[in-house]
Amino acid sequence: MSEKIKVSIVGGTGYTGIELLRLLALHPNVSIDQITSRGDAGKKVKEVYPSLRGILEHCFVDSEKADLSASDLVFFATPNGIAMNYAKNLLAKGIKIIDLAADFRIQDLKVWQRWYGMTHSCPDVLKKAVYGLPEFNREKIKQAELVANPGCYSTAVQLGLIPLLKKGLIDPMTIIADVKSGVSGAGKKSETQLLMSEVDGNFRAYGLTGHRHLPEIEENLSVLSSTDQVKLIFVPHLVPMVRGIHATMYVDCLDIFDPLKVFDEFYKNELFIDVMEKDACPQTKSVTASNICRISVHKVPNSNKLVILSVIDNLIKGASGQAVQNMNIMMRWPEKLGLNLIPLTP
Amino acid sequence: MSEKIKVSIVGGTGYTGIELLRLLALHPNVSIDQITSRGDAGKKVKEVYPSLRGILEHCFVDSEKADLSASDLVFFATPNGIAMNYAKNLLAKGIKIIDLAADFRIQDLKVWQRWYGMTHSCPDVLKKAVYGLPEFNREKIKQAELVANPGCYSTAVQLGLIPLLKKGLIDPMTIIADVKSGVSGAGKKSETQLLMSEVDGNFRAYGLTGHRHLPEIEENLSVLSSTDQVKLIFVPHLVPMVRGIHATMYVDCLDIFDPLKVFDEFYKNELFIDVMEKDACPQTKSVTASNICRISVHKVPNSNKLVILSVIDNLIKGASGQAVQNMNIMMRWPEKLGLNLIPLTP
Amino acid sequence: MSEKIKVSIVGGTGYTGIELLRLLALHPNVSIDQITSRGDAGKKVKEVYPSLRGILEHCFVDSEKADLSASDLVFFATPNGIAMNYAKNLLAKGIKIIDLAADFRIQDLKVWQRWYGMTHSCPDVLKKAVYGLPEFNREKIKQAELVANPGCYSTAVQLGLIPLLKKGLIDPMTIIADVKSGVSGAGKKSETQLLMSEVDGNFRAYGLTGHRHLPEIEENLSVLSSTDQVKLIFVPHLVPMVRGIHATMYVDCLDIFDPLKVFDEFYKNELFIDVMEKDACPQTKSVTASNICRISVHKVPNSNKLVILSVIDNLIKGASGQAVQNMNIMMRWPEKLGLNLIPLTP
Amino acid sequence: MSEKIKVSIVGGTGYTGIELLRLLALHPNVSIDQITSRGDAGKKVKEVYPSLRGILEHCFVDSEKADLSASDLVFFATPNGIAMNYAKNLLAKGIKIIDLAADFRIQDLKVWQRWYGMTHSCPDVLKKAVYGLPEFNREKIKQAELVANPGCYSTAVQLGLIPLLKKGLIDPMTIIADVKSGVSGAGKKSETQLLMSEVDGNFRAYGLTGHRHLPEIEENLSVLSSTDQVKLIFVPHLVPMVRGIHATMYVDCLDIFDPLKVFDEFYKNELFIDVMEKDACPQTKSVTASNICRISVHKVPNSNKLVILSVIDNLIKGASGQAVQNMNIMMRWPEKLGLNLIPLTP
Repeated sequence: MSEKIKVSIVGGTGYTGIELLRLLALHPNVSIDQITSRGDAGKKVKEVYPSLRGILEHCFVDSEKADLSASDLVFFATPNGIAMNYAKNLLAKGIKIIDLAADFRIQDLKVWQRWYGMTHSCPDVLKKAVYGLPEFNREKIKQAELVANPGCYSTAVQLGLIPLLKKGLIDPMTIIADVKSGVSGAGKKSETQLLMSEVDGNFRAYGLTGHRHLPEIEENLSVLSSTDQVKLIFVPHLVPMVRGIHATMYVDCLDIFDPLKVFDEFYKNELFIDVMEKDACPQTKSVTASNICRISVHKVPNSNKLVILSVIDNLIKGASGQAVQNMNIMMRWPEKLGLNLIPLTP
Repeated sequence: MSEKIKVSIVGGTGYTGIELLRLLALHPNVSIDQITSRGDAGKKVKEVYPSLRGILEHCFVDSEKADLSASDLVFFATPNGIAMNYAKNLLAKGIKIIDLAADFRIQDLKVWQRWYGMTHSCPDVLKKAVYGLPEFNREKIKQAELVANPGCYSTAVQLGLIPLLKKGLIDPMTIIADVKSGVSGAGKKSETQLLMSEVDGNFRAYGLTGHRHLPEIEENLSVLSSTDQVKLIFVPHLVPMVRGIHATMYVDCLDIFDPLKVFDEFYKNELFIDVMEKDACPQTKSVTASNICRISVHKVPNSNKLVILSVIDNLIKGASGQAVQNMNIMMRWPEKLGLNLIPLTP
Repeated sequence: MSEKIKVSIVGGTGYTGIELLRLLALHPNVSIDQITSRGDAGKKVKEVYPSLRGILEHCFVDSEKADLSASDLVFFATPNGIAMNYAKNLLAKGIKIIDLAADFRIQDLKVWQRWYGMTHSCPDVLKKAVYGLPEFNREKIKQAELVANPGCYSTAVQLGLIPLLKKGLIDPMTIIADVKSGVSGAGKKSETQLLMSEVDGNFRAYGLTGHRHLPEIEENLSVLSSTDQVKLIFVPHLVPMVRGIHATMYVDCLDIFDPLKVFDEFYKNELFIDVMEKDACPQTKSVTASNICRISVHKVPNSNKLVILSVIDNLIKGASGQAVQNMNIMMRWPEKLGLNLIPLTP
Repeated sequence: MSEKIKVSIVGGTGYTGIELLRLLALHPNVSIDQITSRGDAGKKVKEVYPSLRGILEHCFVDSEKADLSASDLVFFATPNGIAMNYAKNLLAKGIKIIDLAADFRIQDLKVWQRWYGMTHSCPDVLKKAVYGLPEFNREKIKQAELVANPGCYSTAVQLGLIPLLKKGLIDPMTIIADVKSGVSGAGKKSETQLLMSEVDGNFRAYGLTGHRHLPEIEENLSVLSSTDQVKLIFVPHLVPMVRGIHATMYVDCLDIFDPLKVFDEFYKNELFIDVMEKDACPQTKSVTASNICRISVHKVPNSNKLVILSVIDNLIKGASGQAVQNMNIMMRWPEKLGLNLIPLTP
């Protein structure tokens, strides 16, 4: 590839932003143009993230003043409600967009507005947005101008359910997803509840009254698996660790079948999905620092239930890695470009 | 209480053993007689556990050679299959027993022998053993000569389910218990899978092919709640932390009722059970170093499902604290004696 | 003790505040009157700290509006610069004060004002303040109306050095203190650098350009050991854990002597100091949740250097536990009252 | 590079072994031939390390039976005392060796034998071994047939001292190295003292009676800096984290000079050494998963002392990454080949 494309990152100071920079800095086909930030504008990126010393010489540019017009593709690693204000303008200039936030993840406008508590500023653009779960939406992503990168919980849960839903093998109305996440999923926010002193040695559920990933999952599971309606009980938990998501899912089978075979077949050509053998369980650390999702499926004896386990690194396959994977697909590059990462052990 | 009873601890080198020593050393009504150990016999307790320097001057005595005959009560903090070999003899001498291992937790001998892979050496004693979950078995514990202290998972799960089962409000055949434990629950074993380098930053399920606490829970739930049969799907997970158990339970209601009211009523006089308000979630760290179990219950909107959360410190309410509570009941002492512990924060 | 004294806590929402509440709630000779807070005024204490559910029913009172006049003794667990504004008034009413912050730790006013960047509001009160390191200032604490509770680093460092300095056995001008602290020492501040995602798996030095505990240590070491001048190189580090301080100190001997004997003699009657045997090293976790300081001393072969190790729980012997110890001394109660705590293991 | 060399790894099951496999699997110029193990012989590598699923299909070969004759270069990631038994034979066949253990790190045979408690089996080979600290031994490494890869502590300490020693700017006889390491440095050993329950939340010194890296450091510091004799006080500590070493060093200046300038000059062309600006401090996590060593140097006011901070990832620059760097040098490849790694944050 003789010529690189120019990419910019809006919102480079959060954890998905820094992870995106880490991946893009080594990606052979891109050069990084602008990196914006509200809080850190003017500072060198490497001052805020010493891990990038010697790697990136960029300064953070003020989000309001950044000139993104020279970019071929812009990543939004911003809070929710930002990308939608830039989208129309950028698309009009022929600039592609990958939004790592939630602005374009839910097509049902009413649902979105209720859960995110704001009015969507570009419903027309939303209609053209493509949900970026490559394993089940690759063809649409290829054509997309704007990709909505899935949430981290959503990625882990959907990759563990769609094969079974798509074949109509499980009851779409009785799914339970008991999910657990490392604390980096909550972002780099100065909240006392995210302090080391509060999180370390502590395990807790949260969001029992409702989590925003639930409507995202229900809608997209339904669309991607061609199922009329999907309902989940979704209980997220905070794990005293930095990276990793573990989804434990309980489903009711509608038929007798070999679930491992179903998964093996669906994912046999997928570069980033690893279906484990019978009785093996995935561990979050076995995917840390990689774009891999590992899945196992377990029959419950004397029961029509299955237990499905699915693990990802929330910042990679659950965010920035999947965003790079989507970029590779949009650009018709090999899907593994810049993502040839082996998990870090121990 | 002018005179103290003498207690001995068989198997004092493990984590439940040391925790028991910590609690008993400050208990106003007991004096510690013998502390046995196979591996550490001859060593001072404080050499193995420097946290007990200045507290205990005892040496570990060889388990085979220890003279327990001067004891009024003996705690077994041993691996499974040890207490049953001592029980008959001790009981014959009028010595009470509290077994923190599993030898007397399951009355169904066949089930026990299948799960524990050994022949039970005293089925007749087993019949007289009382399951030591004080909140639901207090009267029997008062009369007991031998108490089987419940497992840690079993305690957290049962305290979250019995009130509803006892009133017949939930389906006993469709319960799901997604449970999470800190690593001290696995004991002080020199296994590579328990190393800091393996556990830290890692979350994983295990025991998908069967966990020994499952038959214990199913049998005792049935007995304590007067329900014919109870079936659970039970999936344990290892959390990268030392102490704490969090049980997340999913149940199907058979009726319309206010679950919080049910819990409040059942536990209103219980010293160690804290039922939380609507929408509040318990955290494991909020019970660390205490004998408390905190419980919350959550209705799932548009559904007949409830989510029940229950947290304990696995080494206290899930083991040694509950053992002291059982001793207090057996001795007709105030139940809180030696257990007036406030959780450690942060 | 038939009658309890009334104590109030100004600034009860921080980590030293909550630890103080935990200790005082079980102290047999005190009843807690007011607990103040700026940020959490009006809230129940147990709402902010669920670990105190069932223990304390108090609400936080606004610091400005709190009526402290019914108190016999007031603890300040506030930021620096608060207690000095209350002190004169309270003392005038015969109310004793223990300040856990730094307002009264340094007698040299110029030094204090330079390091703390503010004007001291009551230099006359400062003169009467007694530095609350009981092991070396017990007689003065007995008479004190206002005790300045030492800093956490200061406690660990001074307890490891004073015996040698007092006897003139080491060079007071060449001491190096390489100290390491868990993150709770930084308090409950919503700063991104204290987030779990930043601290976990990370070890770093800080404060190389100057740490406020340095002048506190230098002045008090000099006074308490009757040495003209003491100079330290002091390098603090942040350890990825919640509780605990470990001080590693390097000193030059001026003479040939048995250092272990010196420590043993100085501390032989001290309830909270544990001098370890030759070649043993203390661990921070062996004092967690207790008021103990463990110390070891090591000769460097072929050298006149000693290495001294000293560990404490920064929130207990390094803050709230020492404050209770000081109260006990001021009230002429047994020094261990309410502090009979065994470290938590594992 | 059209043709790849064949490399084998003897002892692939430990933490330096798995890290070497991770790096070599992505190295463009090598193909992995044999991977040996005593304990895991016969098992697939990916069974033992699920992080390598989809990456390596090799089985572990029994160390005794492995045929290494087809290899161009063999890495030893074994316990001490193994490589020396293979070395002569392999070298005779023209096979290069990089030993990650300690067999060839110390030229003084008596010193080695005293510290390692065994007789060296090939003193003649030892004489030809080259100490693999590339920044100060590059030319010799280029010519070497056998490279002794430095210890992890040794790397961090020496990179922070040699520039000053080499210029004769500091006193070589009064150096203090207070070093701290994550627990992966202790290897994958099933010892209770390395359990999560023992290490987490715990900080402790160890090896006060002598650590094997001390003679390695003293000898090599002397040789590499052309100083007659170097003496250190060396105190290692265990940090409750998995990866990372932080060395805090205290030295006495013999002259007045700008230490930052000295470091900047020495390291200006080094790809893996990052000298930080005045007053900045390196963090271990800022080098995690990379081959970088970050160094800062700090003048102590009113003193002739310097404090030098040096951090590395113990498994990479402190072991397997440095081994790959040495291979690159031996093979005259670009030094960064396969080591273009950006630290993982958060």
